[in-house]
Order: sequence, then C-alpha cells, then structure tokens
Amino acid sequence: MKQFLSVHDVPDLPGLVQEALWLKQNPYADENLGRHKTLGLLFFNASLRTRLSTQKAAENLGMKVMVMNVTTDSWGLEFEDGAIMNGNKAEHVKEAAAVVGQYCDIIGVRSFPSLTDREKDYQEQVIKQFVKYAGVPILSLESATRHPLQSFTDLITIEETKTVARPKVVLTWAPHVKALPQAVPNSFAEWMNAADVDFVITHPEGYALAPEFSGNARVTHNQREAFEGADFIYAKNWSSYETYGQIINSDPAWMITQEKMGLTNQAKFMHCLPVRRNLVVEDAVLDSANSIVIQEAGNRVWAAQAVLKRMLQA
Amino acid sequence: MKQFLSVHDVPDLPGLVQEALWLKQNPYADENLGRHKTLGLLFFNASLRTRLSTQKAAENLGMKVMVMNVTTDSWGLEFEDGAIMNGNKAEHVKEAAAVVGQYCDIIGVRSFPSLTDREKDYQEQVIKQFVKYAGVPILSLESATRHPLQSFTDLITIEETKTVARPKVVLTWAPHVKALPQAVPNSFAEWMNAADVDFVITHPEGYALAPEFSGNARVTHNQREAFEGADFIYAKNWSSYETYGQIINSDPAWMITQEKMGLTNQAKFMHCLPVRRNLVVEDAVLDSANSIVIQEAGNRVWAAQAVLKRMLQA
Amino acid sequence: MKQFLSVHDVPDLPGLVQEALWLKQNPYADENLGRHKTLGLLFFNASLRTRLSTQKAAENLGMKVMVMNVTTDSWGLEFEDGAIMNGNKAEHVKEAAAVVGQYCDIIGVRSFPSLTDREKDYQEQVIKQFVKYAGVPILSLESATRHPLQSFTDLITIEETKTVARPKVVLTWAPHVKALPQAVPNSFAEWMNAADVDFVITHPEGYALAPEFSGNARVTHNQREAFEGADFIYAKNWSSYETYGQIINSDPAWMITQEKMGLTNQAKFMHCLPVRRNLVVEDAVLDSANSIVIQEAGNRVWAAQAVLKRMLQA
Repeated sequence: MKQFLSVHDVPDLPGLVQEALWLKQNPYADENLGRHKTLGLLFFNASLRTRLSTQKAAENLGMKVMVMNVTTDSWGLEFEDGAIMNGNKAEHVKEAAAVVGQYCDIIGVRSFPSLTDREKDYQEQVIKQFVKYAGVPILSLESATRHPLQSFTDLITIEETKTVARPKVVLTWAPHVKALPQAVPNSFAEWMNAADVDFVITHPEGYALAPEFSGNARVTHNQREAFEGADFIYAKNWSSYETYGQIINSDPAWMITQEKMGLTNQAKFMHCLPVRRNLVVEDAVLDSANSIVIQEAGNRVWAAQAVLKRMLQA
Repeated sequence: MKQFLSVHDVPDLPGLVQEALWLKQNPYADENLGRHKTLGLLFFNASLRTRLSTQKAAENLGMKVMVMNVTTDSWGLEFEDGAIMNGNKAEHVKEAAAVVGQYCDIIGVRSFPSLTDREKDYQEQVIKQFVKYAGVPILSLESATRHPLQSFTDLITIEETKTVARPKVVLTWAPHVKALPQAVPNSFAEWMNAADVDFVITHPEGYALAPEFSGNARVTHNQREAFEGADFIYAKNWSSYETYGQIINSDPAWMITQEKMGLTNQAKFMHCLPVRRNLVVEDAVLDSANSIVIQEAGNRVWAAQAVLKRMLQA
Repeated sequence: MKQFLSVHDVPDLPGLVQEALWLKQNPYADENLGRHKTLGLLFFNASLRTRLSTQKAAENLGMKVMVMNVTTDSWGLEFEDGAIMNGNKAEHVKEAAAVVGQYCDIIGVRSFPSLTDREKDYQEQVIKQFVKYAGVPILSLESATRHPLQSFTDLITIEETKTVARPKVVLTWAPHVKALPQAVPNSFAEWMNAADVDFVITHPEGYALAPEFSGNARVTHNQREAFEGADFIYAKNWSSYETYGQIINSDPAWMITQEKMGLTNQAKFMHCLPVRRNLVVEDAVLDSANSIVIQEAGNRVWAAQAVLKRMLQA
C-alpha cells in the first residue's frame, strides 16, 4: 500500500484481515523488515492507544519510531495556499510535511475535525496536504472524517470472535456530553459495508451519517428493533452531520444497557474507547463476559502491524 | 517479583542490593533478557531522573520503552466505581489500565498524593487500581505514600559508600517553601528499618511520619543530637502527616549546614534531588567532598535495572 | 571533538564537511559505533527538525536517544551561584546537569536567549553551565547566540550544490512580525567566515550583528547590490543587536522576491526553516527550482551524524 487513509486503499481486505490475525500469532516474524526504516508519528491531537499500539507495531517490525506531539509543542501550521504568514502560524504545511518526510520513511498523522466547517473537514485538508507534500507514504492515525486503523481493528476483532458465518453487526449512537467527530462511525460504516456482514445503523433523528459513509446500510431510529438478533453491538457517540457538529439530542434512553443486550443473540459489546461509563454504556455491560472492548483495543497492534508491513513491502 | 510497590515486595533484600551493585559493574550482561518486552512509563506527574534512569535501565536489559506523560496529554481518569461519567473524566481506570496492559509487559506508574485527603492518599487508590486492572506487573515510579526505587537506590548507595559495618543513618526533616509529599521519607524509613543500619529520624514537632512507616526507628526533635556520630545524613522536607499536607513549621534553623555536619562522623550527605540550595541545605555541604547526591542519583539506574531484571525473571 | 558549541570546536572543517557528505551516502556504515551509548536531548525550547534530525543521526550510529522537553515538563532551573532557592526554581543547574550526565554519554541542549539581557545572553550562561557541570560532552542544539548544527548543515549544502569553486554567499535580513534571536545569522556568519566562500551580509541600518560574528565579512545596507552575482541567497530575520532584541524596522521591501533573485547568478535560495511565506520570502521563490530549503533541512541529519561520530570517537 502506498498510503492508508481509508478502506479504499486496501486492495485485498480479506487478505489483510488474515495477515493481521497471523501477525497476532507471529508478532516478530518480520522483525527485520523495518530495519533502517523510521516511522514518524505526528499528533495534532492527543492520543493514547493509537500512539502506543502503532509504536509497538512498528517496533515489532524493527522500525524506529519518532513521536511528535504537535499540540504540546505548540507548532502552528498554515494550510492555506498563498497565505501571507504574518499571524500566529509559524510554518506552512508545504515545508512542514516535506521536512518531516526527509527524516521519516512513513509518516502517521492524527488530526481531528474543526466540527465548525463541514466542507473543509470533509475535504480532509490536513491529511491530504501531508499526502501531497510529504514525499513519503502517509498513515492515517485518525483524520477529520475517518479512523481507518480503528475500523480495521474492529473488523479483525469481529472476524476472530464471530460465532456465525455472517454476523449481524449493529452500529448504535449513544449519548455523550461533548460534541464528538463522526470519524469513528463514518469509518466503521465504510469498513462494514466492505465486509461480509449484515450491517445495521441505529441513531436518533438528526444523526444520519454522510451518505457516502452509510452507503447501503440499513438505518433505523428504533434502537430496540436494531438490537434484535444482533451478534455485535458497536456503540459510539457522534455529533450531527446535518446540523454540523452540534448535539441535537442527548437522550439518556439511548444508553446501552444489559436489558437491551438481552434483545440480542448474546451479542458481543464493542467500543473504540475511551468510553464514559454509565453515560454511553452501563457498568453491567462493560463488566460482562460479552464485552470485548479490551481485546478490541489490544488488536490495534495487529491492525497497525499488518498495515505497516504492507506499506514497507510496497 | 510480580510487582514492585514497596520493600515488602522484595523477598531477598541483601540479594537485591548485591544484584544492583553487580549490574553497575556489568550493565549489559543481561541485554537480551528483555528482548521483545516493552516497558510502559506512565507519568501522572512530571519526572526527570526517574524517567531517564528507568528508561536507561530497561534499555540496558534490551527492553523497549514507551513513555506516556499523562499530565501533558491531558487525559482525565476516573477512579470511582459506579461513577456516571458525565463530567471532565474521559476514561475509567478499569479500561485505561487494561488497555495499557495490552501494549506493555510491565507498566511503571507515577502518581503523587492529593495532600488534601489523607485517607484516600494512604489507601494508594491510583497505583492499586493499576495493579488490579492492568493485567501485567506494576512498577512504582513513586506513589502517593512511597518512592521505593529511590529508597532502594539510597540503600545501595549506603552499602557501597559505608565505612563501618553498621552505619548510623539519620533521616532529617529540612525546611521548604512548598508542601511536599511524605512518600520519600516514608519509603526511606521503611527500607532503613528493613536494612542492617542504626536508623534515627529527626524532625520538628508535628512532622511525625505515619507509625507504619517510622516503625521502630528512634525519633528525636533534637537535630543536633541526632547528627552526633552519624555516618549518613539524609535530608528531605515533607509536609505534616498529622495536620495533613500542611506546612506547620518552616524553621530555617533546620537547614543542613557545614557546622552541623561537623557533629557527625564525617557523614556522607544524601538527598533524592531535586534540592533547593541554601533552603534545604547550604552550598558548602552540597559542594563538599562528603556530598554523594550525584553518585546517589546515578545509582537510580542500577536500582531500577535490578528490579526490572527480577520482574522479567518472575 | 570534546564538545560542539561553535565552529571553533571543529579542528578540521573541510574534513568534517567531507565526513558529512560521505555519511549521506553511507548512513549505516557506523551503526555499531554508538552501541551502549545514550544521547540525551534536552529542550528548554520547542524543536521539530533539530530533534528529529539529531535523533535520527544518533540512531543511525546505533545510539539510544532520550528526549526531555523541559518546557512541557515545567522544570524551573536556577543558574545563579549562591542563590537562596526559595522561589519557583526547583533545581540548580549544578545538580541538574550532573544528574543528566549520569544517564547520558552526550547531552544535547537547546536554550534560546532572553532577548532582554544582551550581556547575559552573549555570555551563553545556560549551555556553558551544562559544559561546566554535566561531566559529559555537550552538543549545542541552538544556544542563545549560535546554532552550529544549522550552520554546519548550511555549509555542507553549499558544498554539495555549488557550481563554482568559490561561490558568492549572501546572508540577507528579511522582515518578520516577531523579535527573533541572532543565533542563526551569528552562527552562519561565523561558519562562512571560516569557509572558502565570498561572503556578504546585507541588512537595514540598526541590524548589524555583533562584530565577533560578522568578522571580516563585507556588509552593505543595499540588498539589491548584495544580490548581484550571488550564487546563494540565505534569508533570515533577526532582531537588533544594537537596540537589543527589538524590531526597529520591518520594511516589507526587504522580502525576498523572484524579481530580486533575477539579479543573482541563478542563486540557490536557502533558509533554516520554519519560514513565513510571503513575509520573509514570496511563494514564487520557495516554489521555484532554485529553492533548496528542503534538501537543506534533510542535510541536518548528516551534519548531526558527522558531529556525533567525531564526539563518539573523541
């Protein structure tokens, strides 16, 4: 792979899933593949599991890793062409990306959306400019509209835990106190639509995802109906796409409860984490045997390692 | 060792001291022991020497190290069971610890006390919840009430510099402008009480350590009397345990001076650093040949390396 | 080399230039030289390219690297002898430098000037105290008055791109909105004066560099005249040395334009980056084939690697 920004960069999805599951059993089989290669991890937004899992994946492949927390290092980047840079932006992405590209063989970039300018966010200006100017392959660590390493992780976790050939997978909106990006649900929908699963999305009115992400998925505003017979419940809050970036409803009735899980086919509970207990989902669900959120988080390593392996082989 | 939270986790103290001194002479003898093992260093409070010395120790053993500065990465953790997480805490320690445990073979945790809630601080809620939920061994990098890597370092430094078989070791309170934790004096007392030394504690009235830490040590409020015939003077400020977290006395007469050092048996001067010159101790003492604070700081590496070696062998 | 603070620490400048260019072709030829050696990178001011390029250079030599961002870790250092440390400074450089020296074989230090106290800045108090107390070799990552790794990079970039034996190199002041240090122009002048080039400095009145740095370089206030026949244009803003740290002129007429580049001998355009587009230099120049700023930034690795190699061999 020359880059990894979305599922569309994956030529052979089932093959990549098998690669990740194989690496989980053979983590050091390719520990010389990344010799003399450096992965730069550039965080415009804070990260815990993405940074740790990607760093570990790269080191399992023998790569060196250099982490840059741009937020804390206060490095204001200019992204506009032709800008007269007499304000608080110290460097243009044209130089910044090209310079980091001089020191790294692959660059991972995390950048969240503004949630104020839908058009700009959905144009993926930040990561696309790194692709344009870095001169080396770019790995998305979550961009304005997608979180592909998370979604790939979710797919391999479903693959390794499913009890039926074609499981029913339900993406359900859940309440939250903050306005959150659509990146995780967008990306999850994109990957589920590309996989061999029965995919259903449920959310309150006004929370429809962008059509290019929901695709042909069945969508219902009836959460209980969606849960019936589900094999996997994937919970996540997101802010509105229509009324962009707004919280138009935080109905606690949408919290995931054990009672609702009773409607399912003993569904596994999934969440990308971090998760707010007793707001998004009640303790009883997270603490039950059917919660696979920790296994899911652990699989971030194998997803990242499979992707980095393909990028190194490209 | 399955964990390292206090001297009580050390089955064979003299053996561990000898291990550390041997590693100081043979730093790379075990450089393959930690191959394919990752140490995570999680700092809820800033650190310089603990981070550098522990990172170096782990790398001497061939481990990979991942550092997480949680303070700067602004990651609010919830520690209360059953909390409804609709405030500013983004993740519960139940998930946070378990997730980091997915990426690390050993987790080092630093977390300071509140100095406002004595009961909660002395329950060691933070580090104990990491022990409970991480699923991998926990290494204390200083907790609310103890700093065991520092105290072990102090013991090996005494062992390598003592001129008599059973030295007189004096822990003396010293003035400071900030209210500091009791972790270092608590822990030092705990380790000295477990070692073969003549241990004396001196402090102004109102600064008594918790009984479980001072144990059977001789305690006096007469600093000059305590110094008489001492082989080691260990200076440290701490806030009150009785009037919890308060500065009830900052009498400059308690500063360590060359004149007072004259009362000792040419005692070595020790401090865990950082130390405020001419407040805790005067320049003349720190700049004298009897100050071993830099050697002591250097020994942090060998203490950490001996502990990590035993944890890897467990 | 026992230290690297300025060009005066380089015994054989042409030889070091050739070493850097050789390492660019043979980056891993010495990958065992730094085995069991640790480089500490101590940043009192934020850094992107210096940190990444120096870290990569050290790892190419097989060294371990430990990065300390002292700004973000809020570690107030006292530099005054005899200070009574009852304020907000937690540690004296005497201990801080010596302790870091216990954990590192070489220490890189970055510390910017105050721009308020010229005498103190030009005494290089911070880096000189690290040299005095660390007990290990010190590598400047930019100090109050010099940026030697940048200037060495600039020299090797000139060497590898020059089209005449003795090129005309012009250092030109350019406008900026912030008061910037003189470190880069000071250092560039020092290195150009030591190299076999025809060196000219041009700046508005009131921006003369300190005489010990400008040395015998030709200086003119006529930018157009300076550009005539130039083979390299090196642009940089700096605040006044005479009216210390002040912006006494930000005349936009001094911006580097394609029109002015037309006066040169098809000069290469250089800048240490980050650069503010259309303030310091217009897009047309940076986006032209004659801009070598990215190649220049990439060469930071080989400059640092050549210097570290000599320090390891010392």
